[in-house]
Amino acid sequence: MVEVKLMQQILASNDALAREQLRQLNRHGVVGINIMSGPGAGKTTLVEKTVAALKDKWRIWVIEGDIQGDIDARRVIAQGVSCTQINTQGACHLDGLMLSAVFPSIDLKKIDLLIIENVGNLVCPAEFKLPVHYNITVVSTPEGSDKPIKYPLMFTKSDVIIVNKIDLLPYVDFDMMQFSRAVRKLKPRIPIYAVSLRSGEGVSKWLSWLEDKLEKFCRKKSGTRS
Amino acid sequence: MVEVKLMQQILASNDALAREQLRQLNRHGVVGINIMSGPGAGKTTLVEKTVAALKDKWRIWVIEGDIQGDIDARRVIAQGVSCTQINTQGACHLDGLMLSAVFPSIDLKKIDLLIIENVGNLVCPAEFKLPVHYNITVVSTPEGSDKPIKYPLMFTKSDVIIVNKIDLLPYVDFDMMQFSRAVRKLKPRIPIYAVSLRSGEGVSKWLSWLEDKLEKFCRKKSGTRS
Repeated sequence: MVEVKLMQQILASNDALAREQLRQLNRHGVVGINIMSGPGAGKTTLVEKTVAALKDKWRIWVIEGDIQGDIDARRVIAQGVSCTQINTQGACHLDGLMLSAVFPSIDLKKIDLLIIENVGNLVCPAEFKLPVHYNITVVSTPEGSDKPIKYPLMFTKSDVIIVNKIDLLPYVDFDMMQFSRAVRKLKPRIPIYAVSLRSGEGVSKWLSWLEDKLEKFCRKKSGTRS
Repeated sequence: MVEVKLMQQILASNDALAREQLRQLNRHGVVGINIMSGPGAGKTTLVEKTVAALKDKWRIWVIEGDIQGDIDARRVIAQGVSCTQINTQGACHLDGLMLSAVFPSIDLKKIDLLIIENVGNLVCPAEFKLPVHYNITVVSTPEGSDKPIKYPLMFTKSDVIIVNKIDLLPYVDFDMMQFSRAVRKLKPRIPIYAVSLRSGEGVSKWLSWLEDKLEKFCRKKSGTRS
């Protein structure tokens, strides 16, 4: 079973890299979040709305992960924050090695929040540790409420679930109760925020959650400095 | 670069397995199709509607690929056809090795059509050859029209594209012209069927395409027998 052993080695070295990168974030009091979802659930729109709401108060850097192209990075840069595009050239996830190539170009002293948008995929990204404090999974209502049952690892590894496109609820089969029950079976106390990134409904709860984390890190940062 | 070499070996042995399984289908004049998409685009509903429309005329066997659970297999069996569930136990795609475990249990002499529903993932399934004649990719309108640009391999490997959930077009940002242009840049003459699996709109064109293939294989089968 060479295949499995090698995979374990890859995961182990990835974890070591990610831990070292996370130490760098901690040294500078930077909050790191990793946003994951299937294709088209609304990751980039979440990044755009989050950046637009917080950029005047917090210093933000975004890393965009895509198999190819820079559509998402251009959308983020249009919001007026720095963004690094990683093209995975076919790979289905971001990992510590890819991040180590771009980490030196980010001035961690000058940011408060690092947002990493992973490749659109509800499977593989959950297997590769990134240098972040929180994993955020976005699911959209047209995908159906059975996703936590079919892709359990992604939900188990998450710290916040965002259910996007609630404006489409009248037109799709999505049972919020069934979805929440399935999520909480995997992760009993995880926050689940139902939002419409299009209309803005519910987004303030997500922003409050994130600002709460930023303020806690900021207090620690000031504490270290004083 | 042991990692890459090993991956090539895995892909090569997978291709050999898939080719041998495809020879078995050909010997029995069975059409094989592989249905791929991101999570929740409508693969299982496409299987349900296809089975419901064709099962009285053609003998169908379905293989359901899921990371875990048998929700989809139960939906297919409810349509009155045979279905084998493969649980990939975390793997992000189906491959020849997984199929070789279930192939002997399928009586190829007694079927005309083998439908394989892959794991919901727009990346990895495209990398692993399966014993099929046609790859079908389902995209749903809420996912957005940029998917061919972001996940080119999936579209390059496909023989038919189904754009599902056109009933949601008034409520989402999906530009059919932009989508079709991006697909045809990768695959100039590929059929693109715009459908609503919910209302049934447009589904007949997909069914006609599939029946056309079934009839061609059937003629070959009769030719061989006579």
